[in-house]
Amino acid sequence: MGEFDIIREVFAPLTAATPGAFNLCDDVALLEQQNLVVTKDLMVAGVHFLPKDPLDLVARKLIRVNLSDLAAKGAKPLGYFLGCVWPAHTGRDAIEMFARGLREDNEAYRIALYGGDTTVHGSKNAPLTLSATLFGTPPKQGLTPRGGAEPGDDLYVSGTIGDAGLGLAALKKEFKFTTVDKASLATRYQLPEPRLTFGAALAGLATAAIDVSDGLLADAGHIARASGLAATIEAVAIPRSPGAGAWIAAQQNRWRALSAIASFGDDYEILFAAPPAMRRSVTVAAKASRTEVTRIGSLTRGDGVRLVDENGAEIAAPSKGFDHFAE
Amino acid sequence: MGEFDIIREVFAPLTAATPGAFNLCDDVALLEQQNLVVTKDLMVAGVHFLPKDPLDLVARKLIRVNLSDLAAKGAKPLGYFLGCVWPAHTGRDAIEMFARGLREDNEAYRIALYGGDTTVHGSKNAPLTLSATLFGTPPKQGLTPRGGAEPGDDLYVSGTIGDAGLGLAALKKEFKFTTVDKASLATRYQLPEPRLTFGAALAGLATAAIDVSDGLLADAGHIARASGLAATIEAVAIPRSPGAGAWIAAQQNRWRALSAIASFGDDYEILFAAPPAMRRSVTVAAKASRTEVTRIGSLTRGDGVRLVDENGAEIAAPSKGFDHFAE
Repeated sequence: MGEFDIIREVFAPLTAATPGAFNLCDDVALLEQQNLVVTKDLMVAGVHFLPKDPLDLVARKLIRVNLSDLAAKGAKPLGYFLGCVWPAHTGRDAIEMFARGLREDNEAYRIALYGGDTTVHGSKNAPLTLSATLFGTPPKQGLTPRGGAEPGDDLYVSGTIGDAGLGLAALKKEFKFTTVDKASLATRYQLPEPRLTFGAALAGLATAAIDVSDGLLADAGHIARASGLAATIEAVAIPRSPGAGAWIAAQQNRWRALSAIASFGDDYEILFAAPPAMRRSVTVAAKASRTEVTRIGSLTRGDGVRLVDENGAEIAAPSKGFDHFAE
Repeated sequence: MGEFDIIREVFAPLTAATPGAFNLCDDVALLEQQNLVVTKDLMVAGVHFLPKDPLDLVARKLIRVNLSDLAAKGAKPLGYFLGCVWPAHTGRDAIEMFARGLREDNEAYRIALYGGDTTVHGSKNAPLTLSATLFGTPPKQGLTPRGGAEPGDDLYVSGTIGDAGLGLAALKKEFKFTTVDKASLATRYQLPEPRLTFGAALAGLATAAIDVSDGLLADAGHIARASGLAATIEAVAIPRSPGAGAWIAAQQNRWRALSAIASFGDDYEILFAAPPAMRRSVTVAAKASRTEVTRIGSLTRGDGVRLVDENGAEIAAPSKGFDHFAE
């Protein structure tokens, strides 16, 4: 198996004959659109996915975590550049399985591979390391910024929170879920659903948005900081799936459990701010894109993020999200 | 040290206040130029650079190997997205040294950081893994393709060939060079010089071009294959530095040594084809950009790459370049 055979036979078909990709026969690609939104996320085996996760799911997660960044900004995806560093002695079947996952999501999201680089680690124990640079077009209303929230804005989140973190715990057998809950939570960890349609519907409506990757509290902190405001989140308002509900019920301290849910990360939901005058519009946008949306708090003058109980008293958070450099 | 501090304090200044980079405060960047040329190359410690190479040089090599891809196409660089996976427990001083290298080459090539991702391996033994996605604008004559050569075209290469491979051998103490040669060859390995000015001058003049990264023979093969032609390279015509000359003179078999030089890779020179009618224009372009250029062979009907001696007899090549998947 040669590097050039792999590129020609496994990856070139993923360009879907897009002219600017040159069928992966050149070192560059040509993008002819004006105004591109670009994002880049890395994934490393053992850090962002489990080393035994099926490689087609890993490929799709790589694409989807990047799509999620575009979704929060209201952008429409077009394609991507891919970087793969395989452990030494990776077989062609593994690379083909990875490519099958890419092909599936290329079709699901109508995107194409435009180029990239594929190489091999010096050791078979080095972790599979992946990089994707995704690009798309901004919505005509302009990108939804991270820092545009105003004092008094409501804070909303799509879907449910904490499932991916619990899915990881389920896959690692750290907690015993029902079979149904386990499957559903594991899917949230392995195969996030980027909220592209809903994100596009929020363009011009949300004053600030971010996708929840570092954890609800941490990402609320990013919006608050970028907007020069304080964020308050009502713990009981945080939307939970049945699996998360079961886990919380089994914990000794319900507040600590809610705080953990708000800190896990990897949810890939959209957290956003909008003025109270827009509540009806938010509901319409949510219905039109068949997305559950929950109002979980608000933004006010000040700084920082507070998680509060029903009486408005602050709940001590065990952690404010995942930080790769924290020790 | 936190991930967000590192981004804000070490990397955000590298955006040079480019508006579309949002000061690295969002998950996306906005590129407003029409027609972008994009390339992406990975580098892994122990594979593409030595684990002990100074981190500022590693950063500059990462930028430069990508600039070299743009150079071969005649493109003008604008900026880049960066992906870094650091070994666990990497200190802030190491990351700052890496960023110093980026800053130096940002200034040298008038480019800026636009975004990216930075994360940490699960183990301190996992190799530093880097990814850069560079973008620029195509020349007004259009990108120099890889596969546009015609039968009868001359084949040229800039600079000298084999130095980076010998530089690696020198750094690994596999051959004893003079102090001067060792320093010069090691620099060719650690800090390639992308041929941006010369590449831009070749736009509309060269019928096909590639930067020499896989090795002269392998990259001549890429041009030949993409053009549907055969390439013939005269071994004695391959341009050599004094250090390479000294190494060849010390080898038992001169032909085998020349063939090795043509297979090492990492030269980051421009290999290109042009019609014989353009010889004078090639000389003018070379002089204008102060670049040494050597005519080393030609392209004819047929396929494959042949390295030949003064009598036109084929020299058996030990290897046709570096292939990461070959075992």
